[in-house]
Amino acid sequence: MSGKIAALSGFPEFLPAERIVEQSVLDVIRDTFELHGYASIETRAVEPVQRLIGQGGDVDKEIYAVSRLAAGEPEDPDPAKRLGLHFDLTVPFARYVVEHSGKLTFPFRRYQIQKVWRGERPQDGRYREFTQADIDIVDVGELAAHYEAEVPLVIADTFRRLPVGPFRIQVNNRKIPEGFYRGLGVPAGEVATVLRIVDKLDKVGPDAVRDLLVEAGRSSQQATSCLALAQISAPDDGFVDAVRALKVAHPMLEQGLAELAAVVEAGAEHAPGLLVADLRVARGLDYYTGTVYETQLVGYESYGSICSGGRYDSLAADGKTTYPGVGISIGVSRLVAKLVADGRGWASRATPTCVLVALGAEDDRAQAMRVAARLRARGIATEVAPAAAKFGKQIRHAHRRGIPYVWFAGTPAAEDSERADSVKDIRSGEQVEVDATTWCPPSEDLRPRLLTAH
Amino acid sequence: MSGKIAALSGFPEFLPAERIVEQSVLDVIRDTFELHGYASIETRAVEPVQRLIGQGGDVDKEIYAVSRLAAGEPEDPDPAKRLGLHFDLTVPFARYVVEHSGKLTFPFRRYQIQKVWRGERPQDGRYREFTQADIDIVDVGELAAHYEAEVPLVIADTFRRLPVGPFRIQVNNRKIPEGFYRGLGVPAGEVATVLRIVDKLDKVGPDAVRDLLVEAGRSSQQATSCLALAQISAPDDGFVDAVRALKVAHPMLEQGLAELAAVVEAGAEHAPGLLVADLRVARGLDYYTGTVYETQLVGYESYGSICSGGRYDSLAADGKTTYPGVGISIGVSRLVAKLVADGRGWASRATPTCVLVALGAEDDRAQAMRVAARLRARGIATEVAPAAAKFGKQIRHAHRRGIPYVWFAGTPAAEDSERADSVKDIRSGEQVEVDATTWCPPSEDLRPRLLTAH
Repeated sequence: MSGKIAALSGFPEFLPAERIVEQSVLDVIRDTFELHGYASIETRAVEPVQRLIGQGGDVDKEIYAVSRLAAGEPEDPDPAKRLGLHFDLTVPFARYVVEHSGKLTFPFRRYQIQKVWRGERPQDGRYREFTQADIDIVDVGELAAHYEAEVPLVIADTFRRLPVGPFRIQVNNRKIPEGFYRGLGVPAGEVATVLRIVDKLDKVGPDAVRDLLVEAGRSSQQATSCLALAQISAPDDGFVDAVRALKVAHPMLEQGLAELAAVVEAGAEHAPGLLVADLRVARGLDYYTGTVYETQLVGYESYGSICSGGRYDSLAADGKTTYPGVGISIGVSRLVAKLVADGRGWASRATPTCVLVALGAEDDRAQAMRVAARLRARGIATEVAPAAAKFGKQIRHAHRRGIPYVWFAGTPAAEDSERADSVKDIRSGEQVEVDATTWCPPSEDLRPRLLTAH
Repeated sequence: MSGKIAALSGFPEFLPAERIVEQSVLDVIRDTFELHGYASIETRAVEPVQRLIGQGGDVDKEIYAVSRLAAGEPEDPDPAKRLGLHFDLTVPFARYVVEHSGKLTFPFRRYQIQKVWRGERPQDGRYREFTQADIDIVDVGELAAHYEAEVPLVIADTFRRLPVGPFRIQVNNRKIPEGFYRGLGVPAGEVATVLRIVDKLDKVGPDAVRDLLVEAGRSSQQATSCLALAQISAPDDGFVDAVRALKVAHPMLEQGLAELAAVVEAGAEHAPGLLVADLRVARGLDYYTGTVYETQLVGYESYGSICSGGRYDSLAADGKTTYPGVGISIGVSRLVAKLVADGRGWASRATPTCVLVALGAEDDRAQAMRVAARLRARGIATEVAPAAAKFGKQIRHAHRRGIPYVWFAGTPAAEDSERADSVKDIRSGEQVEVDATTWCPPSEDLRPRLLTAH
C-alpha cells in the first residue's frame, strides 16, 4: 500500500454506490420540500468571520477561516473583513434575507441543501464537512405561530418516504422552560445558564444536572422543579396538565404551553405518532425563542438528533426591520452514513448504466455508438463496451459494473449476415431479439434505485 | 438603505427565480451524464495545499487556504499539512481515484457537480466561487483513445438540451503543436513555453505572439510556422492536409493528427456541425497530453470557453500505477448567469408552489391543511395561505408569488353549507368545481419550468 493516499479524518467521501443512496435521499428531500412550497436557494460558502462568531452561539462550533494563499498578500488586519466557511445554513440564510429583502416575497419559504464545515475534533459520527438540508419560513416584523406547527409536518412527510425506520420528532417551546424558571424565581440573567445545564440531561444524567444547578446558585427545590419539568413528555397535549401539576405560574409559561399544544395537535392529525412534546429539548443555540425541534431514530437514540431547529426572532435584522423565522435542518451526511452502515438502504446498482453495448470487434464501434445513441434518445442509460472482446468477457464486465443488460448489435461490420439485435438480461440469462428504436427495460431497471429492508 | 449588507464581490448568489434556471440546467446536465453511464461522486472541498500547488499548473488560479480559527491553535508549520479549497474538480478526482482505487471498477466513468473556489480578482464574469459540472473517464495503466472522441459527444448532447443557442466545441490534440514544434527544431525544454505564448493568440493577436516567440528565442521562420499552425481550423479532417502543407514532420505530430481526425470523424456523425478541429486551442494546464477541448457560444466568443478539458496521463499516480484519463468541465455558474442576463432562459415561476389554498377564516386552517395534504399526496406542490383574508387579497398574494392556482375549500367551519371545493386559474380567471382527491393541473403547471426564447 506504499504510495497510497491517506484519508483526511472528518472529511468522509462516498463510493459510487453509497453516493447513489445519498442522491436518492436528497431527491426525496428536494421533492418533499418543493411539494410543501419551499423554493431552493444557495448561499455562498463564506461569511465574514464576525457574523459567524456573533451568531454562532455554541462555542463547540469551530470556524474554518479562509484566506488567499497568494504570495505577498498579508492577512487582512481588519477581522471584520476576514472570511470563514459557514458552519450551518441558518446564519447565511438570515444574511441572505436581509441582503436581498427588497427582491423577495414574504412570508419567504426556502429550502437549502449545501455543505457546511466545522473544525471539530473528528469523533465517531462527527464530520468536519457535511451536507445539511434546511427549510425555513421568514416573514417581515411578525411571523404567524402556525408556521411552527407546519415545519415538523414537512419533516414527518420527508422521513416517511425514506428508509430511516421509526423516528420521533421531539418538540418543546423555549417559552416553557424560560417562563417556568422565571416563575420559579430564577433571575432573568440566569435563565440561559439553567437552560444550558438542563440541556446536559441526556449526557450526564439527573444527579449531575442537579449538582450543576445548585453549584450555579439554584436552590435544591428549584433544581428539583427544573428536573421535573425536563422529564415531562407526552404524545399529545397531556403535557399541559403535567406542567400545571408542578404549580408554577408565569405568563410566558402559559404562552409557551398554548403554542406547544397547537403544534402537538396539528402533529396528532397529520403525523400521528410521530410528534412528541418533550420538555427536555432545549437546543444549544441562543437564537431560538419559541418552538424547538429534535428528531431521534427510535432504537438509535444514542446517535443523537438527525434533524433539529426552531423559531428565532432576531437572527435577521437590518437595523429598522427584523425578519423572524422558523426552520429545521436535516443532517444528511450522518443520516446517509447511518443507513449505509446499518444496511437499511442500498443502491440497486453502483452505476446509472442500464445497457452495455457489446463489441465483437473494434470496427463495430461506430455501429455500437449508433445503437447507444438510439437507446439514450429514449431515456435508457447506455454505454459502449470499453474494448472489443469475447462476449463472455463483456458479460463479466457488465456484471462487475452492475449493469443489468448487455446488447448485441446484429450485422457486424466484418460479415454480410443480416441478424437482428438482441439484448440479454444478465441476471436471468434471458436473451431476446429486439429493436433499439422500440425496446424498453422494465421501469424499475431504468436508473439505480434506493432499496430498503422494509 | 442604512444597515443593509453589501454583497461580497466574486461570490454571486441567485434569487429564487434564477436558482430555478440553475436547477433546471443542473437537472439536464445530471440526466445527460447519467444517460451516458457516468456515476456521480463528490469529493471533499479541501485538499492538501501542496497537492493543489503541485498540480495547479496555472499561476492565475489562486488558492484559498483554510485554517481553524480556534483560539490558541497555531497554523500548522508543516505546509504539507495545510489545507486549501479545491480550484477545480480534476485534481481532487485524481486523488480520489488513487485513494479509492481498490474499490472502483475501471474504466471508471464519473461525473461530479460541485462548487470550486479561486482567489482571483473578481472581474466581469470571473467568480471566486462557482459551480462546475465535470465528466471524466480514467483507466488503469492505459486509456483507449476512443474515450477522447466520446467526451465531446456527451457535451454536445447536454448543450443540445439547454437554451444556450448555437455552440461550437473546438478540439485540438496537444501532440499536434508539440510534435510540430519539435519537427520545427524547437528544443524539448522550450515546447511548453511556445505553447503558452501561442495560447495568447486570442488575447493579444498574431503580431504580439510573433514578437513574444522571437523574444523567447525562436527564429522568425519558426514563429511564422507556429502561427500558421494555430490558424488552421476545419469542421472535418480537412485540417490534416492543411497541416501537411506546412511541411513539418515528426512522429508525435502524425499520432496527434490521426487521433484528432478520429475525434472529428465521430463528431461529424453524432454531433454534426458542433465539433470543429481548431489548432489554436491549447488549454493552459500543463497536465494535458492528448485531445483538448474548449466550447464557445456562437456570437459570444468574447465570453470565453464555457466548457473545457482534455486528456491527461500522469495526473493520478501512486508510485507504481498511473491512471490516465480524459475529462471535460462545464462552468455552470457563468453559463447560467449568461442565460439569465441575456434573457435566453427564465423560470415559468419563482416558486415550486402550484396551488395556494385560500383561507376565509383562521378557523378553517385545519380543513385547508387537509386539502393541501391530499393534493401533495398526488404530487401537486401546495401551500396554505399565510393568513385568513378576503379572497381578493389571497389571489393577489398568489399572483405576487407566481402561484398559478388558488383553491377554495367548500364548507367553511363557521357555516353548515355543503359546498363543493373549487379551484381558480388566476392567469385565465377560470374557476371550476373540483375534488382534492382527483383534480390535476396540466402537467406543465406541476413544477416551475425553464422557458426559453427558442
